[in-house]
Amino acid sequence: MAKNITPRNENYPQWYLDVITAGKLADHAPVKGCMVIRPNGFAIWERMQAVLDRRFKETGHENAYFPLLIPESFITKEAEHIEGFSPELAVVTHAGGKDLEERLVVRPTSETVIGHMYAQWIQSYRDLPVLINQWANIMRWEMRTRMFLRTSEFLWQEGHTAHETEAEAEEETLKMLEIYRSFHEEYLAMPVIPGRKSEAEKFPGADRTYSIEGMMQDGKALQAGTSHNLGQNFARAFEIMYLDRDNERRLVHTTSWGVSTRMIGGLLMTHSDDDGLVLPPRIAPVQVAIVPLVKNEAEEQEVLPVAEKIRADLGQHLDPLRIRLDTRIDLRPSERFFNWVQQGVPLRIEIGPRDVKEGNAILVRRDNREKIQTPLADVARQVEQVLEKMQGDLLQKALDFRVANTTRVESYEEFKQVLEEKGGFILAHWNGSVEVEDKIKSETKATVRCIPLPGYLDQEDYKPGKCIVTGEDSPQRVIFAIAY
Amino acid sequence: MAKNITPRNENYPQWYLDVITAGKLADHAPVKGCMVIRPNGFAIWERMQAVLDRRFKETGHENAYFPLLIPESFITKEAEHIEGFSPELAVVTHAGGKDLEERLVVRPTSETVIGHMYAQWIQSYRDLPVLINQWANIMRWEMRTRMFLRTSEFLWQEGHTAHETEAEAEEETLKMLEIYRSFHEEYLAMPVIPGRKSEAEKFPGADRTYSIEGMMQDGKALQAGTSHNLGQNFARAFEIMYLDRDNERRLVHTTSWGVSTRMIGGLLMTHSDDDGLVLPPRIAPVQVAIVPLVKNEAEEQEVLPVAEKIRADLGQHLDPLRIRLDTRIDLRPSERFFNWVQQGVPLRIEIGPRDVKEGNAILVRRDNREKIQTPLADVARQVEQVLEKMQGDLLQKALDFRVANTTRVESYEEFKQVLEEKGGFILAHWNGSVEVEDKIKSETKATVRCIPLPGYLDQEDYKPGKCIVTGEDSPQRVIFAIAY
Repeated sequence: MAKNITPRNENYPQWYLDVITAGKLADHAPVKGCMVIRPNGFAIWERMQAVLDRRFKETGHENAYFPLLIPESFITKEAEHIEGFSPELAVVTHAGGKDLEERLVVRPTSETVIGHMYAQWIQSYRDLPVLINQWANIMRWEMRTRMFLRTSEFLWQEGHTAHETEAEAEEETLKMLEIYRSFHEEYLAMPVIPGRKSEAEKFPGADRTYSIEGMMQDGKALQAGTSHNLGQNFARAFEIMYLDRDNERRLVHTTSWGVSTRMIGGLLMTHSDDDGLVLPPRIAPVQVAIVPLVKNEAEEQEVLPVAEKIRADLGQHLDPLRIRLDTRIDLRPSERFFNWVQQGVPLRIEIGPRDVKEGNAILVRRDNREKIQTPLADVARQVEQVLEKMQGDLLQKALDFRVANTTRVESYEEFKQVLEEKGGFILAHWNGSVEVEDKIKSETKATVRCIPLPGYLDQEDYKPGKCIVTGEDSPQRVIFAIAY
Repeated sequence: MAKNITPRNENYPQWYLDVITAGKLADHAPVKGCMVIRPNGFAIWERMQAVLDRRFKETGHENAYFPLLIPESFITKEAEHIEGFSPELAVVTHAGGKDLEERLVVRPTSETVIGHMYAQWIQSYRDLPVLINQWANIMRWEMRTRMFLRTSEFLWQEGHTAHETEAEAEEETLKMLEIYRSFHEEYLAMPVIPGRKSEAEKFPGADRTYSIEGMMQDGKALQAGTSHNLGQNFARAFEIMYLDRDNERRLVHTTSWGVSTRMIGGLLMTHSDDDGLVLPPRIAPVQVAIVPLVKNEAEEQEVLPVAEKIRADLGQHLDPLRIRLDTRIDLRPSERFFNWVQQGVPLRIEIGPRDVKEGNAILVRRDNREKIQTPLADVARQVEQVLEKMQGDLLQKALDFRVANTTRVESYEEFKQVLEEKGGFILAHWNGSVEVEDKIKSETKATVRCIPLPGYLDQEDYKPGKCIVTGEDSPQRVIFAIAY
C-alpha cells in the first residue's frame, strides 16, 4: 500500500486529496479556493476536450469566445438568474488605474452576455438555429471548495443555442445530455443516470434542467454534467427576437449545457484505489509505460533496443497508442513502478535481460495488478486487447458497485435508515413538491438527484406509487442521494 | 468591389474593421475595449492553436492551467514588472458578497503566480528543466483598443520554463522564437524578421526580449510574437531555487514566450484586399467551398451528385481538406460567391449543368481571382496543386511588398523624409541608447522594432556604421518603423 496515500476506508476526503497530490494532478493556488491544474491533470482535461469538441462539431456546433467580464446590470436582467448567482460573484471595481463607472462581474456563466450578442446577430428564422459552444474559465466564489469538484475558478465548456421552437430547443437539450452520458460511459467508464432536475435543483433561469448523475465510491452522488432548456426566459430578458416564416416577430427558445473540470474529480472517485489514480485506457493521457529493467550498461544495450521496438510496434497502430518509454535506469525499479502506478497509467510493460532471452515481456494491469507474460511478437496485439478489456472491466465494476449500492425504499423511516447505514442511491416515490424535498434535505442532507429518463431504472421503477413522506401520488421513483 | 468594405487607400483602419465585420470574425463586446470572437474568427484561432500546440509538445512542453486571479502583492515583487503593468491592471476587490482582504488582479501575464508555484515544485536539478505552456485569457486595460490587435481581454498562450543555466534559458528563448517565426512563414504566409528588442521595448522584468516583426500593408510594423529570457529576475523575486549537482542551492533561470489572438489581426493586414478577408490555405478553417449552380430541381438532380462526388474525392486526401458544400440554392449565385469571398475561403469550385455536361468544374482562387477550368477527373489533384501554389504566392507577394517598402537611410534627415513619404521599415544605424530611441520616437513616432538576428537582412546590413543621430559607432543596422 502506498505510504503517501491515506486508505479510503480510513478517510475518504483525505484519500481523494492524497491521490491528487501523488498523481501530481493539481495543487492549491495562492488565492483561496482556486487551484493550479498541473500537467498530469491538465492532460486528462485535454483528452476530455478533444473527444467532446469533436462530438460537438459532429453535431453542428461551432466554437466562439465571449468576454470574461460582464456588466453587473446584465446579471440582474433575469430574476431567477441573479438570485441564483448573486452570492457567488467576483466583481472588478477598478481597472486601468480608475474606479469603474459600472461594476463588472467575472463570468459565473455566460447566458447573459451571450443573450446580448444573440439579440444583435439573430434577425430572421434564416439565422436559426444558432449552435455555439465556448471553452472558458468560470468564477463562482465558493465557501467550501474541494479540488476539481468545487473551486472558485474552474474550466468548462458552455454550449448556448437558439431555436425557432420549443420542440427544437428541447431536442437540443436532450441531444447534448445524451452526448454527455455516452461520453462518460464510453470514455470515462463511468456509468451515469440521465434525468430531469427537481424545481429546487434546477439552473437559475431554466425552464427545465437535465443532468447526469454518477455514484462515487463512497456512495455519494456526483452531478457530472447539465443541460438546460431555458425556454424564452433569456430571450425575453435580452430581447432575442426573430422574424418568423410568416413575418411575425417572435422570441427565440434557448438552451445551454456544460461539463467542467469537475469530471476529473468524478473520474478519480469512480476508479482510483488505495495506491492512487486509476485511469480508463480511452481517457488516459499515457496508456502504456514501457519500463526496461537493467542493472548495467551491458544489460542496457541488450534490453533497450527491444523496448524501443515494442514502442515502435505499438505506435504503428491505426489510432496510435499514447506511450512512454521510461529510460530513468538510474532510479530503482520500485520507484519507477510506483511513479506509473500513481499516475494511473493503465498498462505497464516490464522487460529485463531474462525476458529478452526468453522472448517475453510482462504486461501489468493498473486496475487489478494482473501480470500477463506475453511473447515479444505478440505484445502489440495483446496490449490492444488488454486495454480494451480493462476499459470494459472498469465500467462493469462501477456498474456493479452502483447496483449494489442502490436501494428501493417504501417509507420515510426506511429511507432514513438506509441512508444512515448504507448510503448510495435511494429509489423512492415522491410527490414532486419543493416542500417535501426541502424537508428531506434539511432532515437527512439527501436531495432529489434526478427524475430518471425512461430506460435507466428497472421497468417497475417507472410505475406509479405513493410519496414516502405524504402518501400522495407519484408517477415514478426518483433518485435520492447525498451529493457532492 | 464590395459595398460593405471601405477601400484600403481611402481609410485603412476603417477597411480593417469592415473586413472583420464582413467576415463575421469578431464583434464589439458590451464591455469597453473587449471583443467577442465569432465562430469564423475563432476557427482561425483554433487552427493556429492546433499547429502551435503540436509544435510545443514536439519540443517537450506540457500544458497546465494557473489561476486567473493573482494577489496584488505578487505583481509588486518584481520591480520592473509592476512598473510595466500597473497602469493596465483590472482588480477584483469584492467577491462572494464581501470586500476582499487583499485585492486580486486579473492576470495581465502569469510570470508571478507561476514563479510562486515553481518555487514549490522545483527542489533539485533533477526537476529541471520545467517546460510548461498555458492557453489562457489575459486582461490588460488598454486606453485605445483595436479588434484583435489590442483589446483589454485577449487570448494567448504563455510558455514558462525554468532551467539550470543561463545558456539553456537562452537556447529555449531562441528555440521558441524560431517556432513562432517558422509558423508565421509556413502557415500564415507572413514573413517576419526575428530580432532582439531594445531596452525601451523589452518586457518588464526580462533580461532580453526577442520578437518577430511583420510588415502590414500600410507599411506599419506588427510585433507578432515575443520570447523573453527572464534571467534570474523572477527566480530572485519568488525564490525559485534548486540544489545543483554539487549540492549548492542556486537560482534557476526562467523564460517566457507568447503569441496571441493579435496574430489574426496580422494575418488579416498581410493578405486581405478590398473585397475582404484572404486566408492562406494552410491556416484557413475552410479551404474549399463547392458551389453548385442550379436554377431548378431538374438541374439540382444533375449537378448535386457531381458536387458531392468532388467533396468525397477531396476528402480522401491523406491530410483531408477542409471543405464546405454550399447547398443554399435558393440564394442568388452572386450572394453565395460574395459570402465565401468575404470569409476568405482560398478556393471556390463552381459547377453548373453546362459544366457537368462538358465534364468540367471551374476553380476560382480567392487571392488573384484566377479561374481555372478543370476536367472533373482532375479536380482533386488540381485543387491540391492550386492550394499549394496559392500558399507560396501569398508568401512571395508579402515578401516582395516588404522588400519594396524597406529603405536604408544614412542620416536622420533622410530617415524623417522616408518615414513621412513612404513609411515601411527603415534600416538605419543606431548607437543603441535609450536616449536616441526616445528622441526618434517623440519626433517621428517610429521605434526600434528589433535588432535583427543574423541572416535576415542583407550581409552589408550587419556591418558596422555610424548612428544616424549621434554619429557614434553602431554594430549593425536595426529596423525602425511605426508600429501597431
